[in-house]
Formats: sequence, structure tokens, C-alpha cells
Amino acid sequence: MGPFGDASTITLGDVLREHRRSRGGLTAAVDHAVRLSYAEFDHRVNKLANALAAHGAGQGERVLWLGQNSFRLLELLGACAKLGAAVIPVNWRQSADELAFVIDDVAARVVVWQDAEIGATVQAAREQAASADSSLWVRHDATGPGSYEELLESGDAADPEVDVDPASPVLGIYTAAFEGRPHAAMLSHWSALIEGLVVGRIAELSDATVFLNSGPMFHLGTLMTTLATLVHGGTNVVVARVDPEEMCAVIEAERCNRAFVMAPTLEAIREINAGGRFDLTSLWPDPDPATWTMCTPSANPATGRAGGYGQSEVSGLITSYGLGRKTDSIYGRPAPLSQVRIVDDTGADVPDGETGEIICRGPVVMTGYLHRDELNAQRRRDGWHYTGDLGKRAPDGSIQFVGPKLRMIKSASENIYPFEVERCLTAHPGVAAACVIGVPDERWTQSVKAVVVRAEGSTVTAEELVEHCRSSIASYKKPREVVFVGSLPKQANGQVDRDRVDAEHGGGGYPGQVSSGRRDVPLRAGAR
Amino acid sequence: MGPFGDASTITLGDVLREHRRSRGGLTAAVDHAVRLSYAEFDHRVNKLANALAAHGAGQGERVLWLGQNSFRLLELLGACAKLGAAVIPVNWRQSADELAFVIDDVAARVVVWQDAEIGATVQAAREQAASADSSLWVRHDATGPGSYEELLESGDAADPEVDVDPASPVLGIYTAAFEGRPHAAMLSHWSALIEGLVVGRIAELSDATVFLNSGPMFHLGTLMTTLATLVHGGTNVVVARVDPEEMCAVIEAERCNRAFVMAPTLEAIREINAGGRFDLTSLWPDPDPATWTMCTPSANPATGRAGGYGQSEVSGLITSYGLGRKTDSIYGRPAPLSQVRIVDDTGADVPDGETGEIICRGPVVMTGYLHRDELNAQRRRDGWHYTGDLGKRAPDGSIQFVGPKLRMIKSASENIYPFEVERCLTAHPGVAAACVIGVPDERWTQSVKAVVVRAEGSTVTAEELVEHCRSSIASYKKPREVVFVGSLPKQANGQVDRDRVDAEHGGGGYPGQVSSGRRDVPLRAGAR
Repeated sequence: MGPFGDASTITLGDVLREHRRSRGGLTAAVDHAVRLSYAEFDHRVNKLANALAAHGAGQGERVLWLGQNSFRLLELLGACAKLGAAVIPVNWRQSADELAFVIDDVAARVVVWQDAEIGATVQAAREQAASADSSLWVRHDATGPGSYEELLESGDAADPEVDVDPASPVLGIYTAAFEGRPHAAMLSHWSALIEGLVVGRIAELSDATVFLNSGPMFHLGTLMTTLATLVHGGTNVVVARVDPEEMCAVIEAERCNRAFVMAPTLEAIREINAGGRFDLTSLWPDPDPATWTMCTPSANPATGRAGGYGQSEVSGLITSYGLGRKTDSIYGRPAPLSQVRIVDDTGADVPDGETGEIICRGPVVMTGYLHRDELNAQRRRDGWHYTGDLGKRAPDGSIQFVGPKLRMIKSASENIYPFEVERCLTAHPGVAAACVIGVPDERWTQSVKAVVVRAEGSTVTAEELVEHCRSSIASYKKPREVVFVGSLPKQANGQVDRDRVDAEHGGGGYPGQVSSGRRDVPLRAGAR
Repeated sequence: MGPFGDASTITLGDVLREHRRSRGGLTAAVDHAVRLSYAEFDHRVNKLANALAAHGAGQGERVLWLGQNSFRLLELLGACAKLGAAVIPVNWRQSADELAFVIDDVAARVVVWQDAEIGATVQAAREQAASADSSLWVRHDATGPGSYEELLESGDAADPEVDVDPASPVLGIYTAAFEGRPHAAMLSHWSALIEGLVVGRIAELSDATVFLNSGPMFHLGTLMTTLATLVHGGTNVVVARVDPEEMCAVIEAERCNRAFVMAPTLEAIREINAGGRFDLTSLWPDPDPATWTMCTPSANPATGRAGGYGQSEVSGLITSYGLGRKTDSIYGRPAPLSQVRIVDDTGADVPDGETGEIICRGPVVMTGYLHRDELNAQRRRDGWHYTGDLGKRAPDGSIQFVGPKLRMIKSASENIYPFEVERCLTAHPGVAAACVIGVPDERWTQSVKAVVVRAEGSTVTAEELVEHCRSSIASYKKPREVVFVGSLPKQANGQVDRDRVDAEHGGGGYPGQVSSGRRDVPLRAGAR
């Protein structure tokens, strides 16, 4: 054992040390006017780490990030990695009340916050939080006293050389608000490194990768590729938030060849660039915008792969479609070094084709939720992580995601999975979109209700849709009631906001749900 | 913690368990008439593991493989993985004396041996070895009493479910015969899994990979791709040994898309297939044999990448050329999750461009040599593995391999690296090949001697070559003597046999070398 642990180990901090040696001149990060080589990046990380340590943010401690996307979040990740601490970036769109909860929950040694756009909300949250005064508060979008840059400059440039356990947490991601409040899934160095290698394989990353961080960096949908780009010594290009016009300019200027672009942003970029104002061929080689596709970790124009199942608790994707042989399920098979089973409530494997809970093992599995001993005991049993999601195994062994366990509808003794009914409904030519909810029913526990958006020009009736379902899926799954709406409410990530659909249409009483708390399920993606 | 360890860990045994679940119907191994799905493979591995355990080959123990390439070696690897034991496949071309040394050195609980082609040598070694009687000897190419198949059949089919530490050794590879006897580099589950992911990225492997094990499986040159194929759920196709005619038939029949083919085998295949008798387009898409290239882990026709530096002690490649940005050095930069430094004898980093010892860290680094405490203490210092190889860092941070430290020539107070002088000599149009050795010299310790093969038709003289060197490299590096030969002796792997050159031309007295023992350096490859 030496000062950095045994020769057969590695931490995220070691990755930065190596990049400084062997890729010191390559570009680590670009953020507006800031451009850092890996040598400069590691230099700043060391200064930051020593400054953080001087304020108590050492081994086992936490740093909270209350800001939009920034290269400074990457520096904090590196600094925490070298200290054995963890950085937790949170959703900056949250209310003051929500942020105050997070501030108290994390109990960070250092809080790094942003004034632009969210300063008032952050200040309100700071006043509301009971523990705010026990943290050092540092503003990142400022200079001078109390600023991040001042803190960084105060640190010594020597590598802190702390012996860090790669199984210890380095990153926390808030997710899984079962009872209305979210929990921080804590991910280890191993999680970040292995997910980095796996995403690197799926998305074919290398030190020639230039990844545009154009989705939220508090979310693994974006951050898993950020980490993979870092692991491979590529370049992370950062924009503060989704801004299609700015993204076009940055893609052209930096020749970005990976990005995070969901459907609405893609549409906006197509419009902005209808006249070919920007050269976006580094990302979409064919200049015809009609050929452009979304960019996600598992679906990028360079590889054409698409789909997978995952959650923050497993560092992002844990199954992948399209790497290797095609599968019956569009969610694909477990990614390398991941293990997946489908089990019943006793933890026994269910037969193939039957629905059960998806459970996982492997280095990508979180160390646990921060400060949630009881919940952790529920979620980790017999050496497996219980995802809280339902799935089944296709005949070829691939994994089909069925839906969150908490959204399962109970009608009499039958389990009904909303996604199954929705798939049936959207297969009807008259249906553009559908959300199926459970409505409390005194006699049957719940009854099935479909909230449907008609396809343009369609005059399909409720009776026709109920009949369509009866002929396609088991009769007990058919909606008892169908209502038509102009559109479905969406979350920030583009997915249907099921809580709002429930609230607007009388949904509730799900047997798996303690209350009607929000639960984001943003990492699942079918084939394009 | 459950029966299989914590949820965030993984072993090679877990990989097999997962493949059985999610890729049970895909083909794990093909070996002549034997064809095993991943379900069948894991079933046989479990029976074998229980049978081995019943003969004492449990946690921390070893199984020795004295045979040519076979699917049974893969089964033994899987069974040892599930038990926390290690399998050690050794070079079957060795003499009885050499094998006897290995038998005593390993002190295996179970020895699996082959009768075909090497039976007499194995029997002689068994008689010579002091410890042979304390092992169970099992013949793999037989049926009935004393056979491998009989042993396997005796085992229970239940998964042994032993809690195995992924940092424990699972594989041993003999290498580094510094003092005339080799040492077994012990590689952990982590080593195999991480090298598997890294090779998977470099060679773009997946469960659609069909890898022809056409190099020796006792050598990581082949075995690193075998492991990577296993990690990704692909198919390992096995031939007993290099046989170009058989290889052609198997490539066609199994549609192999990866293989291990060095230059002489490639030449033989070109000749065999001059008439287009076999369809080899799965491996070489262009039917024109002139376009065909060698197939190694870092250079395959599908990716075109080439080159890297490595050794058995780091599970194979630890740098890679051509994944991502091109580099000044043809050995490339450290692969993901690997760390490399160039240091002087005190362990301090030397300036870029200066020659020093290559030292490494990361999960691919061996746990140590089996039963070599003293040597291990020399090779592992301050948390780093000392490779015994010399290198230097190019201006862009990439790593240049210079030569084994043991082959460094000492002339007066100057260090001279044979490879540097050889590069200078082969740059002369009159030189086809050159091997530079050190000859003992009473006054200067050693003097430089060049053994040269002239290019066809060349009449270049010794004086001309000495003058050529004087004008290109530092004068003290120029050969004092040049002799011409018709060809240079080669090792089985195609590299120059420097021990024989020394023996035939009076070489010796290398300051880093205790005796003139053999040292294979087979994993280094320049660009094609």
C-alpha cells in the first residue's frame, strides 16, 4: 500500500491525475469563454480540493451544487473525488421549499450557489433551511469575496493525495420522491468509472469525443455521458441550460460530436437551422435536417443504438438495446458487468414472461440513499438492489420494462400495468397519446381510466377504444372510462406528468403508493 | 450483504450467472463438435466447480492446465471464478524439465492434462516433479475413469454460491523468466473484467462477437480477447493450436468476426485461400487477400486500430494507439482506468522525453507473482507496479516503449537502449532487420554489437552502417561491431529471440540482468 492505496485500485481522482500526465494538452472543459486543458483542469481541481478541505469538506462529507450547468460542477466533482467527499447537484428549477428540504437533507459542508436566474429562490430557501448557517456558502457566478473563484484561489496547488476508497460515494443524485420528498442516490467512484466505460462502449466515446452538456447535469440522462467523456479523456462542453439557438452556435464552434438532445429541442433546432445557418455536421453528418435524430447516451447519430432501462440508483442505464444482437425487448439486455433479475415479493425469480420487480447488482448500483437507513434496508436485500420497477423477461432473455411498481393499478385481485394498456391504446390509429390511471373504487380497489389525446382529424369514440382494448389485451385491463383531452401535462424532461394527470382526473389509491408523491422515471427509453 | 456479497460488486462468476439468465440461448463456446449455449456452459461450470471443490480446489487454491486450447480451459476459468480459486494455463510447448518446475511451483489441487501431442512430455514432467502426487490428475482428452468429463459429471449442478472477493486472483499467466525460470502473474476478477471492458471498447466487441481463439490461450495476446468476449457475452470459438487450414474452415463455418492472426499465419492463410476456397469475409470483409491485415486485440480489420504497450502483469494492454486521437508515440496513451508514469531509480518522475522505468496502477495490475514475496516487494512500491520496462513520454503525453530494462546496455557510464539503435539501423535502406546486443567489455562494461540482415540485393558494409548511426544518433550508441547474418532467430510469437542472438554472438553482461534468462516481451506492438 502506498499513499494512493494499492496498485490495483483506481478512483475518479486517479483518472484526472492520469489525464494530466498523458492528455495534459487536450481540452477537458469548455464553458463560454472558459477553456481548460486537462493540465489546467487538474491544477484547478487540486486548488479547489485543498480549499474545500480547509473548510471541512473532507472524507465522507458533502458539497451541494445549487446552480445550472457549469464547468465548476465538474471541478467540484474532481475535488470531491480527490478528498473522498461527494458532490450533489440538484434540480435548480425547484421551489424555495423544495430547495430548503434538500439543503437540510444534505447538510453540506459547502454550498455552491448561483445568483443568475435562480438567486431569489436560493436566498429564500437559505432563509427557510434550518441548517443553512452550518455550511459555507459560496457563489459561483461572481468574483471577489464569497465567490467560488476566491475560494479556489485560496487553495494550495499540491495534489491532496488522500487515500480514497473507490467504493465510497463521490456523487449524489436526487430521485425517487416516493412520499413527496426526493432521496439522494449516492454513487461511488466504481459506479462512475464502470458506467463511464459501459456508456463509452455503447456510445463509442474516446478522447476525441466532444460532448455538449445540453441537458441538465443534475440528471444522469446527461451526466452519465459527462462522466463517460471524462473517463475517456474527451471534452465536456457546457451550456447553462437548454437554449437551442446557443446550442447550434456551440455545436458549430466546438465541433461537438455527442450531445443530449430530446425531441422538443431537436424540433427547435430544425426550425432555427432551416436555412442552414449553422454547420451541425459534427453531430448530424447528413445536412438534411429530416434525417436528424435525438441524441441520448443510448441513441446517438454516430452509433444508431437506441433504448435501455435504468434509473439514477444504478448510475443511469443498466440494460442496453442495440449493442450486439437485437433483442425481443426494446430495452435490451443487461449492460456489461450488470446483473438483473425479475422476482416476486419473496425475492424468488418469476418465470420468464411473468411480471415481477426488477432487481439489480453490479458496480453501478448506488451505495444507498443519503440518510435513509430504513428505505435502504427495504431497497437492498440479499445482496441485490430492488429498483421499485416492474419488468418481465422476454423469451430471448432480454428485459422488458413494465412500469413503476408504485403505479401498478389493482382491480379486484388483478394487477394492471398502465404502460401495457397505453401501448394498446396508442396502437389505435385514432390515438396520438394516452395516459392510463387508476381511480379509487370502493368495490374493486381501483378502476382503469384512460386519458386520451386524439390523433389529428380523428373522431374515435370512447366505446371504440374500449372495444379495441378488449380485442387486444385481457378484458380486465380495458379502461372502464375514457376521457379525451387536448394534450397531456409533461415534466421538464418531456415525459408525461402522471401526478398531474392523477390530480386532474381523479387518479389515486395505487396499492404500492403510500401517498401521491412524485416519482420521476426519466431514464427509460424505447427504440426511436 | 447477501450470499453473493454486496450489491455493488461483481465477479467473473456473476458474469456467467447473468449470461445464463439474459443470454442463455446464445452460444458461449464452440470447439470442434462441442457447441455450448451460455445456459449449458454455466450448467457445466457449476458441476465442475462442485467437483473441484470436493477435491479441495476451493478458495485460494489453484488448478493447473497442461493442454492446448480447449473449451474446457474456459470451463475451468468459470469454475475457479465461482469458487474463489485460480486456473493457470501453461505453455504446452515447454520441455519436461520446464513443466516439472511449473508443477512444483503452482502446487495445484487439480492438474488437468492433455495426452494428444504432449502426453509423453507431461508424463515425464509428472515423474520429475516432487509435488505431483499431492494433486489430483485429470486427463481432459479422454472419457471414463480419470477423465475431466468424469470429474465434471461427479459434481452437483447447483450453483456453488460462494462469496468471492473480486480482488482475489482467478487466473495465472506464466511470464518474466528473469533468472531462467518464469513467474506466474496472478490476475484478479477485477483485472479480467476491466481488461475485458477496455478490450471490448478498443476492438468493439459485443454479444455478436465470434472470436476465433487461434493463438495460444496460455498467453494474454489471445486470452485478453477471450476474456473480453466472455465479458460481453460473445462466442469463443476454439482451435487446439495454430493450423491455418483448419482456421480457414472454422472462420467460414462459424462466421468468426474476430481472431488472433499474426503475420506468418496470415501469409499461410493467403496461400491456402489463393483460389478463394473459403469464404473469410466475416473476418476480412474485402475478398481481396492483399487487403487482409493481422488480427490482434488492438489491431483488427473491423476497427483498424493498431498498437499498444502491455505485459502479462497488467492483464495485457495498458496503453492503446488509435482509440481516439492519434498520438506521437505508436504505443498510444494509457487505456481507460489505467495509470502510467515514467520514473527514475528513486521512483521520481523523469522529465518528458527522458527514458525511465514504466510503472503502472489500476485494476488491470496483477495481485502479484505466485509464491514470489521478495520479487513482489521489488515490483510493487508505493502503490505502483514496476514493469521492468523502459519508456519515455512523448511531447503529447503518449508513452513510448523503449525496451526491457534487463536488456539495457551499459557502455562506460552511458545507458544504451537496443531498440533505439535498431530503429536507426533499420531506417537504412540496406537493412532488412537488426538486433543490437551488448557484448561484455572489461574496460567499458559492455560494447554495442549489431547483428544485421541485409535487404535483398544490398551490399551495405559494416563501416557504412556505423557511419549511418554516427550521423543519426548519439555517437556512444553506434555499434562498435557489425556482423551480417541470413536471418534472425525468432520466438514462437514471431519476435526476435534475443537470448539466442546473445548466445550466438557473444552477448551478455547486461547490468539489469542477473543471468542470461529468457524474457518474453510479446505484448508490445507498433502500428502496422
